[in-house]
Amino acid sequence: MSGLPLFGFFRRMLGQDQAFIRAIATITGRTPSNVRLYRLAFTHSSVVRQQGEQGRQQSNERLEFLGDAVLGTVVAEYLFRKFPYEQEGFLTEMRSRIVNRESLNALALKLGLDKLVQLDPGQGRAARSRSVNGNALEALVGAVYLDQGYKAARRFVLGRIVKPYVDVKSMTQTTANFKSKLIEWAQRNGRVLRYELSGEPRPGGVMEFSATVLLDEEAVATGMGLSKKQAEQLAAERALEVLGV
Amino acid sequence: MSGLPLFGFFRRMLGQDQAFIRAIATITGRTPSNVRLYRLAFTHSSVVRQQGEQGRQQSNERLEFLGDAVLGTVVAEYLFRKFPYEQEGFLTEMRSRIVNRESLNALALKLGLDKLVQLDPGQGRAARSRSVNGNALEALVGAVYLDQGYKAARRFVLGRIVKPYVDVKSMTQTTANFKSKLIEWAQRNGRVLRYELSGEPRPGGVMEFSATVLLDEEAVATGMGLSKKQAEQLAAERALEVLGV
Repeated sequence: MSGLPLFGFFRRMLGQDQAFIRAIATITGRTPSNVRLYRLAFTHSSVVRQQGEQGRQQSNERLEFLGDAVLGTVVAEYLFRKFPYEQEGFLTEMRSRIVNRESLNALALKLGLDKLVQLDPGQGRAARSRSVNGNALEALVGAVYLDQGYKAARRFVLGRIVKPYVDVKSMTQTTANFKSKLIEWAQRNGRVLRYELSGEPRPGGVMEFSATVLLDEEAVATGMGLSKKQAEQLAAERALEVLGV
Repeated sequence: MSGLPLFGFFRRMLGQDQAFIRAIATITGRTPSNVRLYRLAFTHSSVVRQQGEQGRQQSNERLEFLGDAVLGTVVAEYLFRKFPYEQEGFLTEMRSRIVNRESLNALALKLGLDKLVQLDPGQGRAARSRSVNGNALEALVGAVYLDQGYKAARRFVLGRIVKPYVDVKSMTQTTANFKSKLIEWAQRNGRVLRYELSGEPRPGGVMEFSATVLLDEEAVATGMGLSKKQAEQLAAERALEVLGV
C-alpha cells in the first residue's frame, strides 16, 4: 500500500511532463527528444538563485546565448535571400528590427511562452523585467537547435515565428520612411536638413555610429546604430517625434 | 582559324578557375559546387566601385553579413559545449575574443586568404584597411554555408579555423588574469582598488556596460563591453598598461 502515494506522485509528474511535451510540440512543430533542454529554456534565473545553489542548477541564460546566435543566423539567411539586391546595411537594420528585445518579447507572447516560463515573482526587478519572455524565446531556439539540429531550428524560426508573425514587407516601408518623411517636412518648412555622423570602435570589433539631425545647424535628435544608415534612421525617427510630425 | 584565340581565352579562364577551385578546396576541405559564391566572397567593394556599376555587380559585404552570423553560431555552440559550467557572460566574452576584427584578420592570413582577395590597391583607405582579410574570411564562411549547408560550414569553422589556430585554453587564462593581476598589484602597493560600473541600453536591445578602475578613488582607465565582466576585464587590462605593470 505504501507504493500508492508514490505512484500518484509519479503519475502527476508524468502528467505534467506530458502536458509540457505537448505544449512544446505544439509550439515548435516537433515532439522534443531531450525534454530537459526545454525545461531549461523556460527556467528563469530568479528561480535558480532562489534555490541558492548557484553554479549547480542552471538557468536559461546559456541557452539564450546560443539561441540568440542561431536566431540571428536564420534571420540573416532569410533576409539575404528575400532581398537579393539590398546592401549589407539594409540587411543588418532589418534583422535588428526583427530580433530586438521588444520584438522578441511580443513574439514570445504570441507563441504563449509566458505560460511556460518558470520565474519567482517575488524576486522583483529581474523577474518582472519585460525581456523574460523574449529571452525564453531565444533559449527555446537554442534548445531546438541542440535537440533537433540546425535544420529543425531553422524550420521552427521561419515556419512558426517569422512567417506567421513578422510583417517584413511593412517593416521595409517603415525603414525607408523616417528619413524621407523628415526630408519632406524640412522642404515644406524651408529648413536646411543635415546629418552629422561619427563612428567609434566597440568591443568585438564592431563600429558604432552616431548620427545627429541638424535643422539649420541646430541639433534636434541623435540616433545610434551599428551602421550609418541605422543611426540616421533612428535619428530621423526621433527628430520627427521631437518636431511632433 | 578564328576560333583559336577564343579557345586560348577559354583555356586561360578555365585554368584560372581550376587554380581557384583547388585553392578553395584546400582551404575549406571541400570542392566548391557554386564557384561564383566563392568568387564573390573574395570581391572587395573597392573593385566593384571601381567599375562604377553600383547595384549591379556585388561585393562580398552581403556574404560577410551572413558569414558573420554563421561563424558566431558555430563558435557559440563550440563554447557552450566546451565550457558546460561557465555562465553566459564568460561565453560571450570568449566568443568576442575569437571572432573580433583583429583575430579574424590574423586567422585569414593563416589561411592565406590575402592571396585570393580581389581589391583595388589604388583605392586608398578602404582597400588598405586591415579588416579586408577578416571580412573575406567571414564572407567565405557565408559562401560555404550557402554552397554546402550549415553542417559543412560548421565543419569548416571548427576543423579548419578554430581547432588548428585558436588557443582557447590560453585565452581562458588571459581572460581571468587581468583582474587578478591588478588586484595583486594594488595589494602589493597598498592602493585601494574599486570598479565603477554603469550600463546603457543600445540599439538592438543590448546593454553596454562601462567600467572604470579607481585606485584610491582616482580614475585610471575605463573599459566598455556587452557584459559587466567584459567591461571590467578591459578596464583592468588598460589600467595595467597605464601603470606599466
